[in-house]
Amino acid sequence: MRPFVFINMAMSSDGKVSNVDGKQIRISGKEDFERVDELKLSSDAIMVGVGTILSDDPSLTIKSEERRKKRISDGKDENPVRIVIDSRCRTPPSAEILRRGDGKRIVATSDRADEEKMRAIERYADVIVAGEDKVNLKELMDILWKRGINKVMVEGGGELSWGLISSNLVDELYIYVGPKIIGGRNSPTPVAGEGFKEKFPRLKLIKIEEMDDGVLLGWKFMESM
Amino acid sequence: MRPFVFINMAMSSDGKVSNVDGKQIRISGKEDFERVDELKLSSDAIMVGVGTILSDDPSLTIKSEERRKKRISDGKDENPVRIVIDSRCRTPPSAEILRRGDGKRIVATSDRADEEKMRAIERYADVIVAGEDKVNLKELMDILWKRGINKVMVEGGGELSWGLISSNLVDELYIYVGPKIIGGRNSPTPVAGEGFKEKFPRLKLIKIEEMDDGVLLGWKFMESM
Repeated sequence: MRPFVFINMAMSSDGKVSNVDGKQIRISGKEDFERVDELKLSSDAIMVGVGTILSDDPSLTIKSEERRKKRISDGKDENPVRIVIDSRCRTPPSAEILRRGDGKRIVATSDRADEEKMRAIERYADVIVAGEDKVNLKELMDILWKRGINKVMVEGGGELSWGLISSNLVDELYIYVGPKIIGGRNSPTPVAGEGFKEKFPRLKLIKIEEMDDGVLLGWKFMESM
Repeated sequence: MRPFVFINMAMSSDGKVSNVDGKQIRISGKEDFERVDELKLSSDAIMVGVGTILSDDPSLTIKSEERRKKRISDGKDENPVRIVIDSRCRTPPSAEILRRGDGKRIVATSDRADEEKMRAIERYADVIVAGEDKVNLKELMDILWKRGINKVMVEGGGELSWGLISSNLVDELYIYVGPKIIGGRNSPTPVAGEGFKEKFPRLKLIKIEEMDDGVLLGWKFMESM
């Protein structure tokens, strides 16, 4: 058993999530911002890869006070559990995700991570070691499930999306396509990694919604690979 | 003055036009195939980059006999003028685009191209030399306009799209987003090149159409950069 897992990302009309320097570009607008905050409200956990922490340093907290209060009145923590996938424990102890806002944090790492770095992180987060060389995502999902996490929202980046999709651990994908061109043969995209050479996962279109001068597309993964 | 220029491409839901080996992947289906053939019917020229010729060797002819007949009865050539952007004249004289189907061909090249290669191509195509080191797309568009080409359909690849967009030569962009994940940090995307670092071209969404289990998105370029 594992949690329900969905990826939520935004890309330019030409399929990029940031520019060639990896610098985050504002792709969506106010409507999408509210939608994403609402998704956080209903999720048990929010997951990102360490690359996103290192490049953007997001806190991943719920932005609306009203939604945070709603969670508390529902008997939950103010924010969903924030999870960083970080095979070598490179998350800085000063990272916003560890410092800002109330709620639990998990840093998932592997045997390859430095002991001292793990100790430094443990002041702020549960450190879960799963996997030898890199985080074993299947094993991690099993652990999360056993801890009562039923719904995980993944905010990227592309390497984590690839890891999850290629391990057949994703149920749905939401991509907001925004009214911008970023370009760049080396600009990051929503799903990176090695890439599929054949046997591409098939999706079913489950949502089309015009929003902030762009379109939100929702896809459901159809079959195991 | 220059022709009306639109780009038409298909990408996976994660923004890839082919897999990491550059191998063409069937992303759309029958409905989109007919739409693209219809677009060819109404275009004066179809333009591709030499990369697409070398990797996929397309003929870029109109597939439906009915549409070809329609063009002839309208006093046109059976196929639109087929144009390859090829700064070093690498198009093989055996390429399908030069050999298959009726109609004119243009290979646009630069001073950097080998004379002998130009001579070999001239048996099958008009060779236009525009630009020193690589094809000067602005100059080329001016030449095409003077030859009576008013509407150009661009079929990629990403390097040509980048060249045209970064030269501010594109009016509209149509991207079919298909129900597949390709992935790959090095897989080709619809707009490649150096990429914009800031001042990203803004688009206006002009079309959303569900098609073949995916979505066709149409965008209009809003302003000069």
